[in-house]
Amino acid sequence: MNPLFWPIPLTAVLALVMARLLFKQMIRNPKGSKKMKTIAGHVRQGAMAYLRQQYKVVGIAFLLVACLFAYLCYGLKLQNKWLPFAFILAGFFSSLAGFLGMRTATCASFRTAFAASRSLNDALRIAFRSGAVMGFVVVGLALLDYSIWFLILHRFIDAPSSQQKVLSMASTMLTFGIGTSLQALFARVGGGIFTKAADVGADLVGKVEANIPEDDPRNPAVIADNVGDNVGDVAGMGADLYESFYGSILAAAALGAAAFFSYDAATQIKAVLLPALIAAIGTLLSIFSIFVVRTKEGANIHDLLKSLHKGIRCSALLIFITSFLLLYFLHIPNFIGIWGAIVTGLITGEVIGKSSEYYTSQAYKPTQHIARQASTSAATVVISGIGTGMISTVIPVVAIVIGTTLAFGFTSGFNPKEISMGLFGVSIAAVGMLSTLGITLATDAYGPIADNAGGNAEMSGLPPEVRQRTDILDALGNTTAATGKGFAIGSAALTALALMASYVEGIRVCMLQSGYHVLSCGHHLVNTTQASLVDFMHLYEVHLMNPNVLLGLFTGSMMAFLFCGLTINAVGRAAASMVHEVRRQFREIAGILEGKTTADYARCVKISTIAAQKEMFIPALSAIIAPIVMGYFFGVSGVLGLLGGSLSTGFVLAIFMANSGGSWDNAKKYIEEGAYGGKGSPAHKSAIIGDTIGDPFKDTSGPSLNILIKLMTMVAIVTVGITIGHVCAH
Amino acid sequence: MNPLFWPIPLTAVLALVMARLLFKQMIRNPKGSKKMKTIAGHVRQGAMAYLRQQYKVVGIAFLLVACLFAYLCYGLKLQNKWLPFAFILAGFFSSLAGFLGMRTATCASFRTAFAASRSLNDALRIAFRSGAVMGFVVVGLALLDYSIWFLILHRFIDAPSSQQKVLSMASTMLTFGIGTSLQALFARVGGGIFTKAADVGADLVGKVEANIPEDDPRNPAVIADNVGDNVGDVAGMGADLYESFYGSILAAAALGAAAFFSYDAATQIKAVLLPALIAAIGTLLSIFSIFVVRTKEGANIHDLLKSLHKGIRCSALLIFITSFLLLYFLHIPNFIGIWGAIVTGLITGEVIGKSSEYYTSQAYKPTQHIARQASTSAATVVISGIGTGMISTVIPVVAIVIGTTLAFGFTSGFNPKEISMGLFGVSIAAVGMLSTLGITLATDAYGPIADNAGGNAEMSGLPPEVRQRTDILDALGNTTAATGKGFAIGSAALTALALMASYVEGIRVCMLQSGYHVLSCGHHLVNTTQASLVDFMHLYEVHLMNPNVLLGLFTGSMMAFLFCGLTINAVGRAAASMVHEVRRQFREIAGILEGKTTADYARCVKISTIAAQKEMFIPALSAIIAPIVMGYFFGVSGVLGLLGGSLSTGFVLAIFMANSGGSWDNAKKYIEEGAYGGKGSPAHKSAIIGDTIGDPFKDTSGPSLNILIKLMTMVAIVTVGITIGHVCAH
Repeated sequence: MNPLFWPIPLTAVLALVMARLLFKQMIRNPKGSKKMKTIAGHVRQGAMAYLRQQYKVVGIAFLLVACLFAYLCYGLKLQNKWLPFAFILAGFFSSLAGFLGMRTATCASFRTAFAASRSLNDALRIAFRSGAVMGFVVVGLALLDYSIWFLILHRFIDAPSSQQKVLSMASTMLTFGIGTSLQALFARVGGGIFTKAADVGADLVGKVEANIPEDDPRNPAVIADNVGDNVGDVAGMGADLYESFYGSILAAAALGAAAFFSYDAATQIKAVLLPALIAAIGTLLSIFSIFVVRTKEGANIHDLLKSLHKGIRCSALLIFITSFLLLYFLHIPNFIGIWGAIVTGLITGEVIGKSSEYYTSQAYKPTQHIARQASTSAATVVISGIGTGMISTVIPVVAIVIGTTLAFGFTSGFNPKEISMGLFGVSIAAVGMLSTLGITLATDAYGPIADNAGGNAEMSGLPPEVRQRTDILDALGNTTAATGKGFAIGSAALTALALMASYVEGIRVCMLQSGYHVLSCGHHLVNTTQASLVDFMHLYEVHLMNPNVLLGLFTGSMMAFLFCGLTINAVGRAAASMVHEVRRQFREIAGILEGKTTADYARCVKISTIAAQKEMFIPALSAIIAPIVMGYFFGVSGVLGLLGGSLSTGFVLAIFMANSGGSWDNAKKYIEEGAYGGKGSPAHKSAIIGDTIGDPFKDTSGPSLNILIKLMTMVAIVTVGITIGHVCAH
Repeated sequence: MNPLFWPIPLTAVLALVMARLLFKQMIRNPKGSKKMKTIAGHVRQGAMAYLRQQYKVVGIAFLLVACLFAYLCYGLKLQNKWLPFAFILAGFFSSLAGFLGMRTATCASFRTAFAASRSLNDALRIAFRSGAVMGFVVVGLALLDYSIWFLILHRFIDAPSSQQKVLSMASTMLTFGIGTSLQALFARVGGGIFTKAADVGADLVGKVEANIPEDDPRNPAVIADNVGDNVGDVAGMGADLYESFYGSILAAAALGAAAFFSYDAATQIKAVLLPALIAAIGTLLSIFSIFVVRTKEGANIHDLLKSLHKGIRCSALLIFITSFLLLYFLHIPNFIGIWGAIVTGLITGEVIGKSSEYYTSQAYKPTQHIARQASTSAATVVISGIGTGMISTVIPVVAIVIGTTLAFGFTSGFNPKEISMGLFGVSIAAVGMLSTLGITLATDAYGPIADNAGGNAEMSGLPPEVRQRTDILDALGNTTAATGKGFAIGSAALTALALMASYVEGIRVCMLQSGYHVLSCGHHLVNTTQASLVDFMHLYEVHLMNPNVLLGLFTGSMMAFLFCGLTINAVGRAAASMVHEVRRQFREIAGILEGKTTADYARCVKISTIAAQKEMFIPALSAIIAPIVMGYFFGVSGVLGLLGGSLSTGFVLAIFMANSGGSWDNAKKYIEEGAYGGKGSPAHKSAIIGDTIGDPFKDTSGPSLNILIKLMTMVAIVTVGITIGHVCAH
C-alpha cells in the first residue's frame, strides 16, 4: 500500500476522536433546571421517534434497492460485485452521522440555553462546538468509508497493469456514491417535509386557533417543531453535505485515475489519492480553526458573523498554503495548475456564499426592499421575493462559469484537447470548495442548536436576557444556513460536471468488459483504452444537433421542476395531517389546555414522520427511474442531455428557491425587529405569509435539488450497463 | 417565378380582405347608448395614447438597431445587405397588426355589450369575429411580408446554381425574423407590464383606499385597466403569435433549403415554399371555420367552449386532409413522412393546449384543489399553486419529447444520420401546429373584447342579465388565453430547435463567404458545402464534455430566470408609479370623487406606458447582449449551449408560470361563483392574493419567455459572423 494512503484513515480517526472529545466536553456542561431537562427530554424523545421510523423505512428501501443491485451485479453482470455491500455501508455511515449529529444537538440545546444565562460567549462556544461534532463526524465517517473500501479493493481487485488496477478501483468506488446520495435524498426530503409540516401545524392550530403563545409546551406539535429543526437542519443538512463531500472525493479520484492513466503508476496513484488527501488536510485545519471562534460579551450579530467568518477564513487561508506544499512535495505534474483549481474552488464557494448572504440577510438592500413591500400587501411581498430570488441566480451562475473555466483552464493549460485533465481540475475545485467542510458544517449545525436553546429558554421561563442572547445566535443561523446551502449547491454543480465525465469513463469500462476493444468513431477507429472523452461523444453523437440530447435537456429541466412541485405539495399535505392531529388532541385529551396533562408529543412526531416517509417516496422514485427510462429509450445521448438539463436548471432553481425563502424569512425578522410597524402590524402579517411560502422553498425543495442532480447522475453511472447493452443490441 | 409561390400572396391578400370585411360587418352593429360610447371613447383614447408612446420608443430602438445592423452588414460585411430594411419592415408589419387588432377590439367591445342585451349568440358572434380580425391581420401581414421579400430576393440574389440561390434566399430571409422577435418582445413585455401595473394600481387605490366599486368611471386608472386588456392580451398576444407564425415559416424554409440541397432545383424550391403553403392553406381553412362558431341562447360555459373547440377542430381536421392532398400533388420525396410531421405538430399543440386547460380551468381538480386551500390561508393557496404549476410541466414536456421524436423520425425515416431532414420535420411540425393560427388567435383575442364589454355594461348601468352574458363569455377567455399561450410556447420549442439548426446552417454560409471551402473535422477533411450538421458539431466541439457547452447551459438557464425576475420586479415598480398617480389625481383634481369632473385618464395611461417602456428596456437588452457576449468568449459551442439551456429551462418555466397564474385566477373565479364562502369571504381574500401574484406570472413573464428564447436564437443567427470571426482569428 502506498504510504500516501495512511494519512487518510488516520485523519478520519482523528476527526472522530475530536468529535468524541467535543461531545464529552459539551456533555460536562451543566444542564440547568428540572423543567429545562424535561422539555429537552421531550425533544430528544421525539427526535428518536423520528429516527426509528425513518431508519425503518429507509432500511427497507435500501435492502430492496440492494437486492436489485445484487441482481444487476450477480445476475446481469452489469456492475461490479462490491456495489450491494458498499451501497448498504455508505447508507449506514451516512445515517450514523445523522444520528450522532442529532443526538449531540438535542443534548446541546438546553445546555446552551443554560450557558446563555451566564454569558453570550459561553453559549456560543457550546452551540458552535456541538455543531462541530456534526462536522467532524461527517468528514470522519466519509474518510473512514473511503479508506475501508480503498483497502478492500486494493487487496482484491486484480488487473493486468498497475494503472488499470487503479482505474478499476477508482471507477468501482465511484459507484458506491449512490448509497450516500439516496440516503441524503431521503434525509433532506423527509426531514424537510417533517420540519415544515410540524412548523405550519404548530402555528396554525396552536397560535391561530387555540390562542396559546409560540413555544408553549401545551401545544403537542411544538415539540415536533423543535424536533423538526434537528431533523431538517441537523440530520438533513449533515446527510446532504456528507453526500457532497464523499461524492466530490470519489468523482475527483475517478477522473484522476483516467486523466493520469497514461502516466506512470506512481503518478496515477498520487492523483487518485490527492482528493482525499486535500480533504484530510482541510479536516485537520478545521480542527485547528474551531478554536478561533469566540466572541466577547455584548457582541451583536455582526461581531458574531465576523467571528464565524474568521474561523472559516482562517481555515481557507491555511488550505491555500498547505495544499500548495502538499502538491509541491507530491511532485505531481502541473502542480501549479492543480493548486490553481483548488484555490478557484475555494474562491467560487466563497463568492456563492457571499451572494447568498447578500440576498438573504436583512443587513442588505434586497431583503429590506422585500420587507418594505410588506406595508403594501402580502401579494407584493411574494412578487418581489420571487423577482429578487430569480435575479439572485446571476452571481452564482457567473461564479460557476468563471470558476469552471479557470479550474478547467489551469489544469488543462487552456488546451481544449486536454478535456480529461481539465475535468479533473473541475472535480478538484469541488474538493477544494468542500475542504473546509468541518468548520462550515459547524457554522450550519450550530443554528438549530441555538434555535432550540431559545425555545427551551422560553418554555422554562428563564430571564429575558437569556432569550435575547439566544436570539442573537439564532438570527445568525438563517444567514449561515443560506451560506451552507450555497456551498452545497455550488459544489454540486462542479461535482455533477465531474460525474458526467465519470459516467463517460464508466462507459469505457463497460465497453472493455463487454469485449469492445476498438470503437468506430465516425470516420476512424480508436482503441477503447486510449479513446478520449471526445471520441466517446462522437461515438454516441452527444452533440446539440442530436434530438435525443435536446429532448434530454427538456426532460432534465422538467425533472427539476417536477421534483420541486412534488415536494412542495408534499409539505402542504403533511401540514394538513399535522393540523388534524393537533386538533384531535385538543379535543380528546382532557386537561391538555390547562396544562394538567402532558400532550402526546411522540404521536405528533410520529404522524409527521410517517407523512414525511410516505411523501418522500415518489420524488425519490422519479429521480431513480428517469435516467433508466431515458437511457433505455434514448441511449447515452439522451442520458447526458437529461443530466445536463437537470444540472443547469436544478442549479438555478435551487439558488432561486433558497434565496427567495431565506429573504422572506429575514424580511419577517426585520419587521419583527421594529421596521414598518413591527410585530403584529399589517406589514408583519403580510411578511408571515411570505415566510410560510418560503418555508418549503428554502428547507424542503431548494436544498434537495443538489442531491437530486447527483443522485440522477449516480443512477446513470450505476445502470450504464443497461443503457449501453440496449444501444449495443441495435 | 415558380407558380407555387403565387397562392401565398393571394392568401395574404384574401386574409386581409376578410379582416376588412369582418371589421366592416362589426362596425355596422349598433353602438348602444351615449354613455356606452363615451366610456368606449375613453378606452380607445387611452389605447391610442399607449400606441403613440410605444411606437415612439420602439421606433427609436428599431432605428438604432437598424443602424447597428447597417454597420454589421455594410461596414463589417458580416451579414446580408437586406437585413436593416427587412428588419424595419418586419417591425412595421408586426406593429401594424397590433394597431389594427387593438383598433378593432376597442370598437367591438361596446358593440358586444349592446349586443349582449339582445342575445348571447349575437354577443358571441361580434366578439369572436372581431377577434378573428386580429387573427387574419396577423397571418395576412406575415404572409405578405414573406411574399414581398421572396419576390425581391428572387429578383436580386445571384448564385452559381439554382440550388445555391434558393439556399441563399432562405438563409437571408431567416435573418429577417429578428425584426418580428424584437417587436414581439417589446409588445409582450411592455404590454404585460402596462396591463398589470394598471390592474394593481386601479385595485389598490380605487377599491381599497377610496372605496369605490370595480369598473367605476371615477377611478382614473380604471380606463388604463381596460386599455391594459387590449394592450396586453390583444396587441401583445398578436405580436407574440405573429412572431411565432412568421418565425416558424422562415425556420422551416431555411431548413428545407438545406435538407433538399442535394435534390434537383424543382424539389428544393417546393420544400422551401411548403411551410408558407401549409400556412396559407391553414389560413383559408380558418376563414371557413369561423362561420362554424355559434351557440344557442341559454348556453353555459361548456357549450361555448364546445362551440369554440368545434371551430378549431373543424379547422384542424381540414388541415389533416388538405395538407395530405397538397403534399401528394407536390410530389415531394417522402411526402408521407412530412405529412406525419405536420399531423404530429397539430396533435402536440392540441395536447399542450388541453393540458393547460386541465391545469387552469375551474372545471377540473387541480384548480378546485387550489381554491380549497384558500379556506386555510393565502400562504397555502400560493404554495399549492406553485406546486401544481411545477407538476403541470410534465405533460407538455412529454408531448414535446414524443412529438419531436416522431416528427424527426417520420421525415428522417428514423435514421439518425439524416439529421437535416429530421430537423426539417421538426420545423414543419411547428408550422403544422400554428397552421390554424387564424382561428386560434380569434379565440384568444375575443377574450379581452368580452372582458371590456362586461366593464362597459357595468359602467353604463345596463341590466344585470347583460353582465351575466358577458361574464359567461369572459370566463371562457381565461381558458382560451391559457390554451393560446400553450400553442405559443409549444410552437416556440419546436421552432427554436429548428432555429438552432438554422444557426449552424448560418455558420456554413458564413464559412463559404469567408473562403473556407474545406473544414477540418477531427481526423478528416470535409467540403464545406457538403458538410453535415454533425460535421459542424465535431468542428466546433459542440458536445456535452466541452465545458463551454455546459457553461452555456448554465447561463441559458440563468437567462430565463433573470428575464422573469426583471419583468416581475418591473411590474412591481410600475404598479407603484400607478398608485402614486391615482392618489395624486384624487388629491389634486377637485370634484373627481363626486363624479363632477372627468378624471385624467390619458395621463394615467401615459404614466403606465412610460413606466412600461422604461422597464422593458433592460430585459430586452439582456436578451440581445447574452448571445453576443457568449459567442465572443466561448464561441459556437458556448452559444449553442446558451440556446439549449434557455430553451429547455425557458420552456418549462413558461409553462409553470402560465399555468400557476391561470389556476390562481380561476381558483378566485371559482370562489366568486360561490365556493368556500363566495365573494367577500376570507377564502376569497386569500384567493385574491394568489391571483395578484399570478398576474405577472401569466401575463408578463411567462408568455414573454417563448419570445426571449427565439430572440436570443435570432440574435445568435444574425451575429454569427462576430462569433465565427473571433474563432477564426485564433
